Amino acid sequence: MKKAIFFHAGLPVCLSAKQEILNLIPDDRIEVIHLGEEKGKIAEAERAGVQSIPALLTPNGHVLHINFGTRIADLK
Amino acid sequence: MKKAIFFHAGLPVCLSAKQEILNLIPDDRIEVIHLGEEKGKIAEAERAGVQSIPALLTPNGHVLHINFGTRIADLK
Repeated sequence: MKKAIFFHAGLPVCLSAKQEILNLIPDDRIEVIHLGEEKGKIAEAERAGVQSIPALLTPNGHVLHINFGTRIADLK
Repeated sequence: MKKAIFFHAGLPVCLSAKQEILNLIPDDRIEVIHLGEEKGKIAEAERAGVQSIPALLTPNGHVLHINFGTRIADLK
């Protein structure tokens, strides 16, 4: 089965989202690409529709752009 | 184990994202709340930090706001 791909660039917000996603999606269903370290894959990500990171490219070819929200509790 | 919660309101963009997410995360690790049908849970979602939908509240209490991107292929 085709895997989902989580694209990120190593920023703290990306790493937080990455960990949350990897906690939820089984390892064998997702791969992670660090676009800062694998710059050759930036064009691939763009072709897939990735406009911002972190983003999750699903096996169906759709891109879920993720905004890592701030909890209200964290604002207090 | 605490489940993730996917919040949506039945809009097409929400339903697409929901299906993608449910395809990736095992059923026993996620629940779905339709805020249009369960308006009593809107306050709960807000307290959790949900600012827009669709959004995924992780078991750790973080909110991933999801923007369902458009594929380049779909623009042609």
